[in-house]
Amino acid sequence: MTCCVVGLGLMGGSFALAMRGYFDRIIGVDNNPSHQEEALKLGLVDEVLEFEDGVRSADVIVLAIPIEAIIKALKDISKLSLKKDALIIDFGSTKESIVKNCPKNIRKNLVASHPMAGTEYSGPKAAIEDLYYNKVMVVCDIEESGEVQVKRAFDIYNYLKMQIKIMNSKEHDRHAAFISHMPHIVSFSIANAVLNQEDKEHIVTLAAGGFKDMSRLAKSNPTMWKSIFKENKKNLLKAVDAFEDELKRAKELIKREKWEELEEWMREGNKLHNIM
Amino acid sequence: MTCCVVGLGLMGGSFALAMRGYFDRIIGVDNNPSHQEEALKLGLVDEVLEFEDGVRSADVIVLAIPIEAIIKALKDISKLSLKKDALIIDFGSTKESIVKNCPKNIRKNLVASHPMAGTEYSGPKAAIEDLYYNKVMVVCDIEESGEVQVKRAFDIYNYLKMQIKIMNSKEHDRHAAFISHMPHIVSFSIANAVLNQEDKEHIVTLAAGGFKDMSRLAKSNPTMWKSIFKENKKNLLKAVDAFEDELKRAKELIKREKWEELEEWMREGNKLHNIM
Repeated sequence: MTCCVVGLGLMGGSFALAMRGYFDRIIGVDNNPSHQEEALKLGLVDEVLEFEDGVRSADVIVLAIPIEAIIKALKDISKLSLKKDALIIDFGSTKESIVKNCPKNIRKNLVASHPMAGTEYSGPKAAIEDLYYNKVMVVCDIEESGEVQVKRAFDIYNYLKMQIKIMNSKEHDRHAAFISHMPHIVSFSIANAVLNQEDKEHIVTLAAGGFKDMSRLAKSNPTMWKSIFKENKKNLLKAVDAFEDELKRAKELIKREKWEELEEWMREGNKLHNIM
Repeated sequence: MTCCVVGLGLMGGSFALAMRGYFDRIIGVDNNPSHQEEALKLGLVDEVLEFEDGVRSADVIVLAIPIEAIIKALKDISKLSLKKDALIIDFGSTKESIVKNCPKNIRKNLVASHPMAGTEYSGPKAAIEDLYYNKVMVVCDIEESGEVQVKRAFDIYNYLKMQIKIMNSKEHDRHAAFISHMPHIVSFSIANAVLNQEDKEHIVTLAAGGFKDMSRLAKSNPTMWKSIFKENKKNLLKAVDAFEDELKRAKELIKREKWEELEEWMREGNKLHNIM
């Protein structure tokens, strides 16, 4: 079986690395020449082809590119003649707009997926073989995908040792806003708040593990995240509001020196880890 | 040399573990009987004594207890007859109120210190030998401490392979608000925002590394943190304000769909990691 990975960054590169033993041949597609070169040098893919040639030769097409690029790629793919029962997987971080915008004639080919995996690094060099191992793969609106395609996609996710969770795309986008998109905005806000301080270098030299954790997401790729925030604007703003409500509550309790209530509020927060 | 560790939790217990080879004898003091028992069973200390007996027998007294308890302990210690040149180290997370409230007759004995180390766990079982290894130890207002005591304290921190940073206590408390106290409030706010959602279990099953990082500090001990927030109220509120300003800015950019400006804002945040 031949796989064509479109987008040879962290997600696509790591997928290619982990799926070496599953596919006979892995084609890479990337419009960045230095990514093409790196992916070949790192042995992520067997060859690099142009988008159309790659897609036409593949049994499985993986779109590991930003959301808007996925939507455009699906339009382009819908005009090509694909292999019989070709499976298209997209790894977009929001799902509703992708599913909605998928051209009808290839809707059965598409299995809309979101791997709950990642690091703060990007590009082919960031690819790691175990990125997907033991992580959750959310698969959305499978009733609209073809049976053969769903079966093949699940087989691939099982090969990666991922836990498959089925969800509708609306629900997915709401959840993703809470556990991923809002926390990114928060992390960038922490980073910028510290950077605006006069003695930022001094502050940062004191940073222990807690601060490093809280500012790690602020290393993320701004171009990619801009596109995610754009696609999930409504849910993201709701999640930010919910977060702000809590922050305001804590601030009020601190201002009014309601220490026992603040302790109680923290004790509530502790409970998250009972369900995690 | 004999050391008396007051407070056998994560900080005190880890200190005792790491300093085994430095002291001839380590006495433990803790007013929680189950902590006493655990500390003995885990071999953190050689024996457990009452506060007064422990303090009186020690060349080095380590106060690894909440801030208010440190202030009270210093008052109690000031009424006892100490060993000649006894060194008192406190590990309080804020420093100004401790230094200010230290009784004059033992001020030379005290070397006010804050190890930039910790985990989200607490109690004697949380103690780990390498907690302090390669971490920063902030030492405050050393001009008020005795020369012998400063020398001894530095010798101990060097033995722990810590990097010593000297700072005044006011400056320390302001920095700590930014890199530690505000991020804790933020993490608890994220935890509570998710817990208030109807489908919290569902949301949490999707959590990947990013969310885990951002909510890890929300595991922290509410009683301890209440006391820290109380002591550093003014600086904490300033840091929360600075954070809120950034969050509001991001929210406005998202609302008004200023995607390029939002990307620029994130790019600014990326710079934190150039100085970290």
